[in-house]
Amino acid sequence: MEQKQPLLIDFMLRHAWHRVSRMYNNTASTEGMTMSVGFILMIVEKDGTPSTQLGPKMGMEPTSLSRTLNNMETSGLIERKEFSGDKRKVNIFLTAKGVEKRKLVRDFLLDFNKKIASKFKDRDLQGFMKVMNAVDLAIEEVEINKNTEA
Amino acid sequence: MEQKQPLLIDFMLRHAWHRVSRMYNNTASTEGMTMSVGFILMIVEKDGTPSTQLGPKMGMEPTSLSRTLNNMETSGLIERKEFSGDKRKVNIFLTAKGVEKRKLVRDFLLDFNKKIASKFKDRDLQGFMKVMNAVDLAIEEVEINKNTEA
Repeated sequence: MEQKQPLLIDFMLRHAWHRVSRMYNNTASTEGMTMSVGFILMIVEKDGTPSTQLGPKMGMEPTSLSRTLNNMETSGLIERKEFSGDKRKVNIFLTAKGVEKRKLVRDFLLDFNKKIASKFKDRDLQGFMKVMNAVDLAIEEVEINKNTEA
Repeated sequence: MEQKQPLLIDFMLRHAWHRVSRMYNNTASTEGMTMSVGFILMIVEKDGTPSTQLGPKMGMEPTSLSRTLNNMETSGLIERKEFSGDKRKVNIFLTAKGVEKRKLVRDFLLDFNKKIASKFKDRDLQGFMKVMNAVDLAIEEVEINKNTEA
């Protein structure tokens, strides 16, 4: 069995996302935040977002999401407000401080994405999108095969 | 501030890697493994790999790496062997069972990557690689700017 691997799309995606997320976490830490805090600031909508919607969007486990939300509440970035009549349902709102930090995150993300976009050509993006689409299709194929076997 | 975001490369990378890793974890769980266990099986070399080299390659925190290695030792996938004369240095080896499971992982990964590759054209790969390279360059630019400011 040879040890050398061919260039594998999955490994490249993993490598790229790990590098991006490490840089995001480093950058966030200079503002006393984490990458997850930054993403939550970006996702919460002006008229509030139910906390149950955040988990799936973030791809976070409920326990670590709720720990992150607790930290964000303590540091004054968000407020939790119960829906009237249902204590289990909670809406998340940004505070004024949260909105301010959201702007920092947004500017940083837009700037970073502009930096990326300045380094490739329009026609490269087409190829990138086709490979990303191929990844999605291949995942669906694996999942369909699994359900057929089960 | 509009709520809609333009299509952002970082969000696409994050989305793609999250989908891939969720599918990897689901697939691994049918074999009583996790994605991390699978990757460690792929990374450990025939003549052993120092445990200190695994963390950086996996992008894992020392505590969660060491917990995963403990689980792998308990379920008989790896053996830890001390370097003679230095108790702090540990080499990781696959057991026969580990080598067997490694083949499963390897076949699955090669098959999945073949599935992906069958769904795009050679010229798309060039675009994909250029965008991935642009991501790397943009990260370096952010990091250089940060060091200059500091």
